[in-house]
Amino acid sequence: MVKAAIVNVTGYAGVELARLLARHPNVEITEITGRSRAGERLPEVFPHLADIDLEIVAEIGESADVAFVALPHTAAAAVVPELLNNGARVVDISADFRLHDAASYESWYKTAHPAKDLLADAVYGLPELHAEDVKSSRIVANPGCYPTGAILALAPVANLTAPDVIVDSKSGVSGGGRSLTLTNHYSEVNENCHAYGLGGHRHLPEIEQELGELRRKADGRRPDLSITFVPHLVPMTRGILTTVYARLEQPLATRDIESMYRDFYKDAPFVRVVDQPPRTKQVWGSNMCLVHPTIDSRTGRLLVIAAIDNLVKGASGQAIQNMNVMFGLDETAGLSQTAIYP
Amino acid sequence: MVKAAIVNVTGYAGVELARLLARHPNVEITEITGRSRAGERLPEVFPHLADIDLEIVAEIGESADVAFVALPHTAAAAVVPELLNNGARVVDISADFRLHDAASYESWYKTAHPAKDLLADAVYGLPELHAEDVKSSRIVANPGCYPTGAILALAPVANLTAPDVIVDSKSGVSGGGRSLTLTNHYSEVNENCHAYGLGGHRHLPEIEQELGELRRKADGRRPDLSITFVPHLVPMTRGILTTVYARLEQPLATRDIESMYRDFYKDAPFVRVVDQPPRTKQVWGSNMCLVHPTIDSRTGRLLVIAAIDNLVKGASGQAIQNMNVMFGLDETAGLSQTAIYP
Amino acid sequence: MVKAAIVNVTGYAGVELARLLARHPNVEITEITGRSRAGERLPEVFPHLADIDLEIVAEIGESADVAFVALPHTAAAAVVPELLNNGARVVDISADFRLHDAASYESWYKTAHPAKDLLADAVYGLPELHAEDVKSSRIVANPGCYPTGAILALAPVANLTAPDVIVDSKSGVSGGGRSLTLTNHYSEVNENCHAYGLGGHRHLPEIEQELGELRRKADGRRPDLSITFVPHLVPMTRGILTTVYARLEQPLATRDIESMYRDFYKDAPFVRVVDQPPRTKQVWGSNMCLVHPTIDSRTGRLLVIAAIDNLVKGASGQAIQNMNVMFGLDETAGLSQTAIYP
Amino acid sequence: MVKAAIVNVTGYAGVELARLLARHPNVEITEITGRSRAGERLPEVFPHLADIDLEIVAEIGESADVAFVALPHTAAAAVVPELLNNGARVVDISADFRLHDAASYESWYKTAHPAKDLLADAVYGLPELHAEDVKSSRIVANPGCYPTGAILALAPVANLTAPDVIVDSKSGVSGGGRSLTLTNHYSEVNENCHAYGLGGHRHLPEIEQELGELRRKADGRRPDLSITFVPHLVPMTRGILTTVYARLEQPLATRDIESMYRDFYKDAPFVRVVDQPPRTKQVWGSNMCLVHPTIDSRTGRLLVIAAIDNLVKGASGQAIQNMNVMFGLDETAGLSQTAIYP
Repeated sequence: MVKAAIVNVTGYAGVELARLLARHPNVEITEITGRSRAGERLPEVFPHLADIDLEIVAEIGESADVAFVALPHTAAAAVVPELLNNGARVVDISADFRLHDAASYESWYKTAHPAKDLLADAVYGLPELHAEDVKSSRIVANPGCYPTGAILALAPVANLTAPDVIVDSKSGVSGGGRSLTLTNHYSEVNENCHAYGLGGHRHLPEIEQELGELRRKADGRRPDLSITFVPHLVPMTRGILTTVYARLEQPLATRDIESMYRDFYKDAPFVRVVDQPPRTKQVWGSNMCLVHPTIDSRTGRLLVIAAIDNLVKGASGQAIQNMNVMFGLDETAGLSQTAIYP
Repeated sequence: MVKAAIVNVTGYAGVELARLLARHPNVEITEITGRSRAGERLPEVFPHLADIDLEIVAEIGESADVAFVALPHTAAAAVVPELLNNGARVVDISADFRLHDAASYESWYKTAHPAKDLLADAVYGLPELHAEDVKSSRIVANPGCYPTGAILALAPVANLTAPDVIVDSKSGVSGGGRSLTLTNHYSEVNENCHAYGLGGHRHLPEIEQELGELRRKADGRRPDLSITFVPHLVPMTRGILTTVYARLEQPLATRDIESMYRDFYKDAPFVRVVDQPPRTKQVWGSNMCLVHPTIDSRTGRLLVIAAIDNLVKGASGQAIQNMNVMFGLDETAGLSQTAIYP
Repeated sequence: MVKAAIVNVTGYAGVELARLLARHPNVEITEITGRSRAGERLPEVFPHLADIDLEIVAEIGESADVAFVALPHTAAAAVVPELLNNGARVVDISADFRLHDAASYESWYKTAHPAKDLLADAVYGLPELHAEDVKSSRIVANPGCYPTGAILALAPVANLTAPDVIVDSKSGVSGGGRSLTLTNHYSEVNENCHAYGLGGHRHLPEIEQELGELRRKADGRRPDLSITFVPHLVPMTRGILTTVYARLEQPLATRDIESMYRDFYKDAPFVRVVDQPPRTKQVWGSNMCLVHPTIDSRTGRLLVIAAIDNLVKGASGQAIQNMNVMFGLDETAGLSQTAIYP
Repeated sequence: MVKAAIVNVTGYAGVELARLLARHPNVEITEITGRSRAGERLPEVFPHLADIDLEIVAEIGESADVAFVALPHTAAAAVVPELLNNGARVVDISADFRLHDAASYESWYKTAHPAKDLLADAVYGLPELHAEDVKSSRIVANPGCYPTGAILALAPVANLTAPDVIVDSKSGVSGGGRSLTLTNHYSEVNENCHAYGLGGHRHLPEIEQELGELRRKADGRRPDLSITFVPHLVPMTRGILTTVYARLEQPLATRDIESMYRDFYKDAPFVRVVDQPPRTKQVWGSNMCLVHPTIDSRTGRLLVIAAIDNLVKGASGQAIQNMNVMFGLDETAGLSQTAIYP
């Protein structure tokens, strides 16, 4: 059994990790932290987790094989060195180890990186792209929720599109976390829809980094992508629908695109290429990503729609998928939940 | 492995049965019917069930050990005799076998009962009350969603209350099924709340039957309960919150009531007595029923709040719980899902 | 034109007052306060109020004929004396002047009353009961949202019921205001329903006071009501549905009850007795209260369902209705909005 | 007073017309039709319209100055000739008279046009573009809900963009009307988001027609736009948020774009250019369109976000705005409602 610690169990990523890990056949949760609630039992804070009767502690000890870090950025990087010293391998759900380039991190997050020297050890934990590296890594940077949908939607054609790419994402509210703000106040969000981050959302550089790498791998002279990414908040708790618009350099038919996608993801247990536009509820509570590529017959433009549950494939489920890969377990262990519909 | 058939997989109870049975460690789904979609594969109708690749057929064959009937009332009773003849035991999710008294059925449902002679063989499948009878029964009548919450809320004190009992229930919309009506049109339901069934809801006689039996068992001379039951529709997909108001014949303190409830449910794996008012989301997607009894200190009145997921404990989960009992399996087999929150 | 000031425009009651008063034919908004946003223009804080271009100030001046106080309790009572000294009449939306008995206030609100000596001057501003007193009053205590529904549901029969009365209310989230708490966090509230205040909600003594007065007025020897009031939160922004259960001392038919209600409210422009259970959306955005009384034919019990918009008839609309009465305007002036459906 | 008839009052556009026209200072509703409910009073069908006590009839008589046609397409065009013969001017909310080219209509709507010869008389009723023509027209084709947002978002720069334009729209459910389908079943829509119409949505040719005209007017040699339009359904009742992505032929700064938009709409009472991304709730229940143009500084791409209430500015409110223009009334008469927030 893999001994797992959850650092900061009291946010939505943490509580979802607890739910999923508690049913994982190869994992034992040995420790959970949460400073503000230290000393309480998990079910006192989250009554729906009545059968996960662990005490929340202030600091992780030395027992864990893997530590899932669900802290805010910078706070995450600050604790990782000690976790590594204690012998744990780390899956970090924060943004701290996603960008290879510290300068880019510091420019987007407007803060110094607390553990710059560890960046070289970190792998971007999208297993569909980097499973080999994840296997042997001691720091896996779990992708952001928006980048998970956007990268999976574009990866199969990253080297086939013209540079101009539009990513229009629609997210449920839980992506904003459990802390209190007017943008997650029920009366402000319900019956409401808006765009945000028009000046540049922090998830953009992840998308650029990963698609850029795929592009350069195929042909080093290819120009960089020029991605416009606009996230939107829609009144639902879970789910991200990503709509991607791109131009292919060479015209392709929908059936060619589809088979290209099916081929690219043929060994990916959590990506399903579907022939109808997916709905976020078709992945609600599951680790699946549904991807629907199609050609707009009027304009020849490529459209790709992708659906994920932002708290599962977009956060905690993917973190467990990474752990499965890291520890040589079946990639789907503990993650075979069917979506709940309706 | 128990071979299970689902009769009418295309409604919400049916599709939820498919989701849950597909992961049940002791069950193999051998057949699924759905007349309007016969000939199609299940994932074509419900894309979220992509890994349950069964063909929907028009009629059940003879292979099943257990048949879950998820047809509307009267249609259900009409197929049960043949299912029994084919050697299957039946869990009927419709109302057809819930009321012991055919006259009561015919008065409430305004139709003749299609299989009156089988009523004597049927057991009311609330395992917390009737597990022994369920074990050996060939027809288990799965309780209605409202009665599940109401009866579990009152059973421990059925013989201790004055006759006057109020049951005020708040239900999500999926309880009304998948067929199309103005009362489940999104624009009519969203941002809306209303009471219905004020002239008498069909779930009332079930509640009266079961609580009446408990009362008479304790003391045959006790007067019948006089229950007013008002269901309400609230804008959510899943969940029933039941608020019960009753007067105790002898005053009791909250802590006495609580321990009485804990004692009553000490062997019930799916009922948890909780010391805070439960929220429906704490059981979302799970088979749990949370029950919170308390005494209103100002008036001495007993208040009980109960929360269930109407499609799980209120329908398909409970049907599987009944099957587990019928076939000598662990009562919780296939039903250990943690609620999904948020 | 009546010159109106809004004290604390930045909460939901305040912003709704601004919306409604800006279109009132006989009112000019002369001042608005909101300490945290003092110095900003109203449309900067609330873009939907783009055409109400007033500056938010820290303190009210002396210009107002009427001051609407939308501060939290105790803060409200603390500013009322100065408003009165400045010559304004006051409609206080807080709880501070609703209870005639200071001791009751202090017991329920766990705080000293900041302006005890003014209590004798205050009128409980439910115009359907107290219009005459409102006319000449300088302090009108605007009723709570729950009491508005509950009292209007029961007033016509306050002197005809047995003491045992149940009030089960279902409220949208905006009733909890604009401040940030986990109970109005979208992800916690959406797809969720719960009861709260089981130990006694602060709106109960208002209901008791008003129904008790009606009872004593009819017959001084009548025993006090024994009301159990349980509020519930449902996932919607606006609306309160109140379900009342009571026993009549003398049996009455539904048609008699209905005509009794119609007679009681024959001059009330904002109460409509309806012959179907009302839906909260039928009053969404309007100042109407729909009331549906009926007799449960099985038990003889009286059921009354009432629907209001908690921010209009339950708060700001009623405050304006009170102002209309105070200033001799048409009671419906500025309040003729039709509900928005769907 | 303008005498107005509503043809097919029982759909959402019809009932919203009734709500708005009933408070219009210069209009008297003289007749309302609705075949399925003929003979009933309007409040029996829509209790929230209790004070609009008109009888629903099967056929319009000859009394109206203006007939609002809220029938489905083809049914609308079929009744228009008779309405014109009876002396009424027509505002048609269906799609029948929006496309100038009958062949395009027949290709998109897969049906013969029932009144081809009247197309030349029809004006596309977006008053911000065609007020002069609307004034004198006897048939005004009220724009579709999506085109209203998309055209208003792009009109000021129609002649400045490169041909590639993306329109990504997010709509509430009421846009799908009041008829019953799985895509407006609450349990299917709630907590769900999806794209549809990827093969080509019928609102696209309207957008192309109007923007194309603006482009040709500026410079006849300009290449046609190549618009990809993808509508999405989000779980809310009202509101459309439109996100437009385009490339400007000449680079412009955000402040230049903003002032260009403000100038374009300086006389449009219902378009407000805003400096923050608008939210659909900021126009909920009102006839406003909020438009936010900005330049993505990373890519130089133009982003425009527009918000409308699909049933007001996207349907019935705009129809009344057209009527106001047609009859020489103040363009804002009866349409000054402030959005309701929250």
